[in-house]
Amino acid sequence: MKHYTSVDHIEDLDELLLLAKNIKSDPYTNQSLGKNKTLGLLFFNPSLRTRLSTQKAAANLGMNCITMNLNNEGWSLEFEDGVVMNGDKSEHIKEAAQVISQYCDIIAIRSFPGLTNKEKDEKDYVINSFVKYTSVPVISLEGATEHPLQALADILTIQEYKTKRKPKVVLTWAPHPKALPHAVPNSFVKMMQLADVDFVITHPQGYELNPEVTKGSTISHNQEEAFKGADFIYAKNWSNYNDYGKITSQDASWMVTTEKMELTNHAKFMHCLPVRRNQIVTDAVLDGESSIVIPQANNRTYAAQAVLTQLLKNGNK
Amino acid sequence: MKHYTSVDHIEDLDELLLLAKNIKSDPYTNQSLGKNKTLGLLFFNPSLRTRLSTQKAAANLGMNCITMNLNNEGWSLEFEDGVVMNGDKSEHIKEAAQVISQYCDIIAIRSFPGLTNKEKDEKDYVINSFVKYTSVPVISLEGATEHPLQALADILTIQEYKTKRKPKVVLTWAPHPKALPHAVPNSFVKMMQLADVDFVITHPQGYELNPEVTKGSTISHNQEEAFKGADFIYAKNWSNYNDYGKITSQDASWMVTTEKMELTNHAKFMHCLPVRRNQIVTDAVLDGESSIVIPQANNRTYAAQAVLTQLLKNGNK
Amino acid sequence: MKHYTSVDHIEDLDELLLLAKNIKSDPYTNQSLGKNKTLGLLFFNPSLRTRLSTQKAAANLGMNCITMNLNNEGWSLEFEDGVVMNGDKSEHIKEAAQVISQYCDIIAIRSFPGLTNKEKDEKDYVINSFVKYTSVPVISLEGATEHPLQALADILTIQEYKTKRKPKVVLTWAPHPKALPHAVPNSFVKMMQLADVDFVITHPQGYELNPEVTKGSTISHNQEEAFKGADFIYAKNWSNYNDYGKITSQDASWMVTTEKMELTNHAKFMHCLPVRRNQIVTDAVLDGESSIVIPQANNRTYAAQAVLTQLLKNGNK
Repeated sequence: MKHYTSVDHIEDLDELLLLAKNIKSDPYTNQSLGKNKTLGLLFFNPSLRTRLSTQKAAANLGMNCITMNLNNEGWSLEFEDGVVMNGDKSEHIKEAAQVISQYCDIIAIRSFPGLTNKEKDEKDYVINSFVKYTSVPVISLEGATEHPLQALADILTIQEYKTKRKPKVVLTWAPHPKALPHAVPNSFVKMMQLADVDFVITHPQGYELNPEVTKGSTISHNQEEAFKGADFIYAKNWSNYNDYGKITSQDASWMVTTEKMELTNHAKFMHCLPVRRNQIVTDAVLDGESSIVIPQANNRTYAAQAVLTQLLKNGNK
Repeated sequence: MKHYTSVDHIEDLDELLLLAKNIKSDPYTNQSLGKNKTLGLLFFNPSLRTRLSTQKAAANLGMNCITMNLNNEGWSLEFEDGVVMNGDKSEHIKEAAQVISQYCDIIAIRSFPGLTNKEKDEKDYVINSFVKYTSVPVISLEGATEHPLQALADILTIQEYKTKRKPKVVLTWAPHPKALPHAVPNSFVKMMQLADVDFVITHPQGYELNPEVTKGSTISHNQEEAFKGADFIYAKNWSNYNDYGKITSQDASWMVTTEKMELTNHAKFMHCLPVRRNQIVTDAVLDGESSIVIPQANNRTYAAQAVLTQLLKNGNK
Repeated sequence: MKHYTSVDHIEDLDELLLLAKNIKSDPYTNQSLGKNKTLGLLFFNPSLRTRLSTQKAAANLGMNCITMNLNNEGWSLEFEDGVVMNGDKSEHIKEAAQVISQYCDIIAIRSFPGLTNKEKDEKDYVINSFVKYTSVPVISLEGATEHPLQALADILTIQEYKTKRKPKVVLTWAPHPKALPHAVPNSFVKMMQLADVDFVITHPQGYELNPEVTKGSTISHNQEEAFKGADFIYAKNWSNYNDYGKITSQDASWMVTTEKMELTNHAKFMHCLPVRRNQIVTDAVLDGESSIVIPQANNRTYAAQAVLTQLLKNGNK
């Protein structure tokens, strides 16, 4: 792969997963690969798992890692072309991206969507401006439309915990008090389409994700029906896609509970975290034996390290 | 030791001090110990000495160090159990602590008390939530009730500068315009109780520290009497413990001055820093020959490195 | 050199430039020099290039690099002597600087001027307080009056791109919506005075820089005249020096355009970045072939690495 800002950039999922598993069993074996290579980690938004696990992955590879909070440690950036820059923005992305790519061998960026302008968000213009203007590989640490490192950790976790060749995986919408992006469900859907699983998406009517993304996937508006026989329940909230960025339901009946988990085939419970307890899922489920959210988060390190490894190896060709 | 969030966790002070002294004389000798080990430094509050000296100590040991300002770079954390998380808090400490402990081999945290709810502060609930939910050693970088790395640097400094077997050490309250926590004096008192010193606490009436902590220590309300024959004067402000978190005196007559230092046995002046000049202590004392606050701060590195060394060695057993 | 807070601290420019060129051609060759050495990077203001390139330079030398945003991660600092510290400032620069210099082998600081009090700014009191109280070398990452690392990258770039022995270099003022400091133009002027170039400064009447700095340099109020035959155009805004810190002109006719560049001898366009597009310079010039702002920014790494190398070598003597 040249960049990793979308699940679409995976060339061979089996190969990438095998690489991630080998790294997990022996994480420090390839430290000459990262020697004298610099990873720039650029954040426009908060991050816990992504920040720590990607730094850890870089260290495991012997890379030098430079972390920056771009919204308060650097200059405010202009992304529009042809603008007379006489306002609040001090620097154009054209210069910023080109400059940073001279100091870094790989650039990784987190930039959430505004959730007010669908067309603008769909362009994922912050991440894609870096792709456009840099001369080095770009990794998304969650953009406006995808969170591909999360999805890679997710499939790695499913592979580790599955007990049959083709498990049933259910992505279920769940209620949340704030309007959330579509990046995590989008990348999860794309990943499930690539993987050898029986995949169902369930959400209240009106909460359809981008049809371009879900095309070909089974969608159900009956959560209980969807849960039947499931091996993995992946809960996630997202805001309305059609009535863009709005919260049109906080229907508490969609929370994942012990009762609903009992409809499944002893399913494992997954979530990308952070998770709102007793909103998305009850304490009982999250603290119970079926929850694998903690080892799922742990796999973020190995997902990131696998992607970094592929990009570094490509760079050495 | 398993964790280091309190002076009480020291198993053998003499052994720990000997380790710190050996490290100070040869700081880079043990870099294989920290190889491929990650220290997570998590800050909820400002820090200068603690941040820099602990990062330095980790580097001296060959550790990878990840520093995060948890209040603005990550997600706002919920610490209460059983809560419906429909408000401002995005992530529960249960997940955060477990997740971080998968990326880090040791976690170090700074979290000051609120100084409004005594019962809550006494539980040191942020630090102790990490202890409860992590699977790795936790170090306090100053919690609500203790600052044990500071106290270790303090006793190391006293050992270096003492000129008799059992020096007289005086902890004196001094005035300050803001309400300050009890963590530094608490840990200092505990450390002096462990050490072979003649120890006196002096403060205005009403400024008693937690009696559970000072139990067995000599307390005087007469600062001049206390200073007589002292070998070390350790100045520190703290807010009222009984009238919890209040400033009930800013009595300028308790400031440490040259005249008061002349009552001592050529005592050395100590303070944990940052120090308010001409509030806690006059310029003349702080800039004079008796002040050892700068080498005292330097010992923070070796105190931290000794604790990290013990925790890493335990982890390797 | 002992410190590098001014272009005046360069002892032998040719030697320093040769060192920078050698480093650029082989950046990782001297990693034993920085082993177990710590660089403290302290920021009071935003930074992109300086932050990343100096961290990169330190990593290239095998140094441990600790980065701190002093205005929000540490304690607010008092710089006045003899003050009763009963207000907002928690720590005096005397302690802070001495303490930091015990943890770091080299300290680098960014502190912009306030642009309201000329006398105070001219003393460059933040940077110079560190110089006064530390026991280790201090590097300016842009102070109130100079930006010497930028100027070193600038002359390195001019040397690389010049096509004649003694090129004509023009520093031109250009309009900007905000009041900007004089640090970049001051250091650039000093560097051009050291270098073997034909140097002209051009700006609107009233926008004279500090006459102590520009003494001996040619100044023209006719931009078009100045551009004639130029080999390098270095654009930069600065606020009024006489009517201190004020914007007394935003004259758009001083913007650098393709038409003006055609007056030159195929001049290369330079700017320290960040640059306001279509204010300082048109898109056409900045995106055109004459612009060398990106490789100019790249040279920031090698300028920093050359200075760090000299300071480390001095420290080893």
